[in-house]
Amino acid sequence: MLMTSLEKELNKTFSKESILLTPEERYVYSFDASETKEPHKIADAVIFPKNIEDVVNAVKIANKTNTPIICRGAGTNTVGACVPVNGGIVLNFSLMNKILEINPQNMTARVQPGVVIGDLQKEVEKVGLFYPPDPSNLKVSTIGGSIAQNSAGARCFKYGATKDYVIDMLIVMSDGELIRTGSNTIKNAAGYNLGSLFIGSEGTLGIVVEATVKLIPRPQARQVVMAYFDEIEQAVASVNDIIAQKLYPSTIDFMDKNSLTTVEKFYPTGLLCDKSSALIIEIDGDKSYLEAQRQLICDILKSNNCAQLQYSSSEKETENIWAARRSSMAACAKLKPNVTTDDIIVPRNNLAKLVRGVQSICSRHNLTACLVGHVGDGSIHPQIPIDMNDDNEYRQYKLAKSEIYQLAIDLGGTISGEHGVGLEKKDYLPRVVEKGTLDYMRIIKKIFDPKNILNPYKIF
Amino acid sequence: MLMTSLEKELNKTFSKESILLTPEERYVYSFDASETKEPHKIADAVIFPKNIEDVVNAVKIANKTNTPIICRGAGTNTVGACVPVNGGIVLNFSLMNKILEINPQNMTARVQPGVVIGDLQKEVEKVGLFYPPDPSNLKVSTIGGSIAQNSAGARCFKYGATKDYVIDMLIVMSDGELIRTGSNTIKNAAGYNLGSLFIGSEGTLGIVVEATVKLIPRPQARQVVMAYFDEIEQAVASVNDIIAQKLYPSTIDFMDKNSLTTVEKFYPTGLLCDKSSALIIEIDGDKSYLEAQRQLICDILKSNNCAQLQYSSSEKETENIWAARRSSMAACAKLKPNVTTDDIIVPRNNLAKLVRGVQSICSRHNLTACLVGHVGDGSIHPQIPIDMNDDNEYRQYKLAKSEIYQLAIDLGGTISGEHGVGLEKKDYLPRVVEKGTLDYMRIIKKIFDPKNILNPYKIF
Repeated sequence: MLMTSLEKELNKTFSKESILLTPEERYVYSFDASETKEPHKIADAVIFPKNIEDVVNAVKIANKTNTPIICRGAGTNTVGACVPVNGGIVLNFSLMNKILEINPQNMTARVQPGVVIGDLQKEVEKVGLFYPPDPSNLKVSTIGGSIAQNSAGARCFKYGATKDYVIDMLIVMSDGELIRTGSNTIKNAAGYNLGSLFIGSEGTLGIVVEATVKLIPRPQARQVVMAYFDEIEQAVASVNDIIAQKLYPSTIDFMDKNSLTTVEKFYPTGLLCDKSSALIIEIDGDKSYLEAQRQLICDILKSNNCAQLQYSSSEKETENIWAARRSSMAACAKLKPNVTTDDIIVPRNNLAKLVRGVQSICSRHNLTACLVGHVGDGSIHPQIPIDMNDDNEYRQYKLAKSEIYQLAIDLGGTISGEHGVGLEKKDYLPRVVEKGTLDYMRIIKKIFDPKNILNPYKIF
Repeated sequence: MLMTSLEKELNKTFSKESILLTPEERYVYSFDASETKEPHKIADAVIFPKNIEDVVNAVKIANKTNTPIICRGAGTNTVGACVPVNGGIVLNFSLMNKILEINPQNMTARVQPGVVIGDLQKEVEKVGLFYPPDPSNLKVSTIGGSIAQNSAGARCFKYGATKDYVIDMLIVMSDGELIRTGSNTIKNAAGYNLGSLFIGSEGTLGIVVEATVKLIPRPQARQVVMAYFDEIEQAVASVNDIIAQKLYPSTIDFMDKNSLTTVEKFYPTGLLCDKSSALIIEIDGDKSYLEAQRQLICDILKSNNCAQLQYSSSEKETENIWAARRSSMAACAKLKPNVTTDDIIVPRNNLAKLVRGVQSICSRHNLTACLVGHVGDGSIHPQIPIDMNDDNEYRQYKLAKSEIYQLAIDLGGTISGEHGVGLEKKDYLPRVVEKGTLDYMRIIKKIFDPKNILNPYKIF
C-alpha cells in the first residue's frame, strides 16, 4: 500500500503503538453517540498522544499536510462533534488520563483531558471535596469532552456547569503554540477571560491539554426524593412551587411515562410505570438539615397531588435511583436499532408547554419519545428510538426534530443547554443566534484557526 | 466659543439636558477611585444616555469623529478604567438605572447597566431571591461596572463572581451594531460563549446596555462570626482548618490590625484594636442548620487560639459588622490626603506568606498598609493611605506596589482577582499573562474595536 504524505509524517514522529492506520481501526473512531444518515468520511489516522508534546506534534503535522484534527474523549458526544466528517486525524485522549494534582488546601485539581469525570469525582471525594458537574454518562465521559461541550448535568441546578469550575487551561492552538488561559487562583481579573471562549467551543478553537478545576467542600450527606404524578402539569407545578418556596435542592430531574416504562422494562428497579411522570429531587448538605428540607419538599409535592412519594434512606438507594435515571438512554436504545437524544431548554415558566409540545410533536410523527430532563433548569432531553434504515421513520424524525427546536425557540428558549451544536444542530444555530453575534463567532474561529483544521464543519 | 466638530455632532443628536460640555462639568467625570499622579486629559463631553438608541447614537458619533468613548457607572473603579485618559466622550449610565423585570419563576432579573448592585439585591430579596455578587461598594456601584470589571466580593467564596450570574446581554459594539450574546435560559450551549469575553473586559470590547442575571433562592438566615487573633498565622491557619473540615461559609473575610484600628478610629463600632487581625466569617442557610455550623466553626477558631469570639444575633448586628468591614477604605482615606486600594490573589496555601510579605514591603517603604481581603479566596486588598503631593512618599508607594505584585506572582498568584487592570496595572499584565495569550487578547480587541475607540489605552 502506498503511504500518503500524512502517514509518512505521522510515522516519522510517532511510534507504531501510538497510531492506528488500518481502515478497520480508523472506522471505529469515526463515530460518536450521535445518529445520522448523512454519509461522511472516516478518520485518516487515529493518534493516542501521551503528552502535550505529542499533541503539538500532531497539530504541526496537521498544519503541514492541511489535515483536519478532531479531538476525542470517550466519544459520548450526541451532536456529532467527534465525527471526522471530512476525514482527518482523530486525537484520542485515552492515554492522557492522569489526575496530576489534587490540592485540598487550595481546593483545586489539575487534570489531563482524558480523565473520566466520574474518576475525578471519586478521587476528590476521598479528601472530602466535590466536583459537581455530572453529565449522565459521567462514568465514561471525560473532562476534555466536558470542557469542549460545556457539559452540565442534573446538579447544574444548584452547582452550575463545567464553565463555572475551570479556572486555568493549557491549550494547543491551531499553529501548535501552547498557551495558558487562566491562573492558579479562584478569581482572576487580569486581562480578558479568554479561557471561557474555549469552554463549549467543541474543539474548534484550540485543544485543551491540561485543566485546573475549582473544587468545593463535599456536602456532608444527600438524599433523593422520588415523586410520581398522574398528570405532568402536577409535576411541573411542583417544580415551580419548590422554587417559589425558595428551597434549593441540588437537582430537580424529570422522567416521563415512556422513560419510566422503558427503563423499568430493561433495568428493573421498581419504578412505577402507571404514572405520567416522576420528579427526582436530590437535596444535599448537613445531615441535620436534610430531614427538615425533605419534609418541606414532600409537603409541596403532596399539595400538588403527587400520586406516590419515595425517598432514599441510604447512599446505595440514592445511587440506585440515579442509576435508573442515567440508564434511560441505554434503555431507549433497546427499543429500536438506533436512539437519538436531544437537548432543548426554555425559561422555567414555559416548561409544561415544552413537555406537552414535544410529546404532541412526536406523537404526530408516530415517534415514541422518552422524555427525561433537568427540569429545574428548564431543560428536557427527548430520547427518540428509531430505525434509521426505515426511510419514512427517519424523515418523520427529522421533521419532528426541527419542530421541537422551533417550539423551544417559540417558548423563549434555545436549541442546546448542554450538548452543544456539532454537526447535528449547525443548520439550526442561525435560528437562535442573531447574524451579528454569529458573525463575531465566525471571525473568532477564523483568527484562532485560520487554516480551518480544528474540528472543521462543526457549529457553523 | 468655537464648537468642535464633536460638539456639533452631539448637539445635533442629544438634547441639552443630556450633555455636559463646560470644562468644570467635564472635569468632574474625568476621574474614578484610582489615584495617580500621571497627568491625563479630561473628557471632551459627558453624555447621559436614556436608552439603547442614545448609546448607539453616541457610538456612531464617536466613530465619525474618531473620539474615544468611556463608560461610567458610579466611578468607583480603583484601577483607572473609567478615566478618559486621552479625552473622549464619557457615557454616564446613571439615567439607565431601571430594573426592567424580576421573574421569580425563572429566577432571573433583567436590568439596565446603571442599576446599583445593592438596589437590585434589595428588590430581588423582597421576592425571596438572591443576587450574590457583593463588591464592598455595592451601595453605590452599578451592575454595568461590575460586568465591566467582573466584580466579586466577600461572598465569592461560596457563590462566585459576576461572570457566574450573567446569562444574557445586549451589547452595543464599536461600530454601533447591537448584538445579543446569550439566551434567556439558565444554560446555553448554542455556539461560543461570546458573552463571557465581555465580562471583565473593562468596556474595551463593547458597551453593555442590558443584562439578564441568574438569581438563586435567598438563604433563609445568616449569621456572622467575628474572631480576633493575636497572631496572623493563627487566623490563616483557621481559614485552612475551616476548609479542611469541609465547612462552607458564605464568606471568610479578613482585617489586619491597621484596618481594625483605622475603622474603629473613624467609625467606632467596638472593634478590638489590640489584636493582630480578625476573621469575619458569615454562614448562611436554613436557620436550624446555622447553630450547628457556627458551633463547628467556633471550635476550629478556638483550637487555633483565637483571642476573642463574637457573633451576631440579629440581622442588624450582622449588617453592622459588614458596615465596619466595608468602611475600611473610607476610614483609610481619612489618614492621609489620598488612599489607594489594591487587589492581589494567591493560591490559598500561600496566604500567610502574602499577608506577611505585603506588611514587610510596606513597612520597608515607610507606608502604612491597612490589609483587608477575601481570604477564603486567597485575595488581599492592601489599602495604602498616602500624600500624593509628597514626591518621596509617592515614589515609595510605586516601588512598594511593584514589589507587592511580584510577591503575589512569586507565590503562584496574580495581580488582580476582582478589580481589573485598567490603567494602573497594564504595565504589569505581561508579568502574569504570557505573550502568546496576550497576543490573542490584543487581536480580539482589534477585531471588536478596529478604530480603538472603546476605552482605549486600558488593559494593554
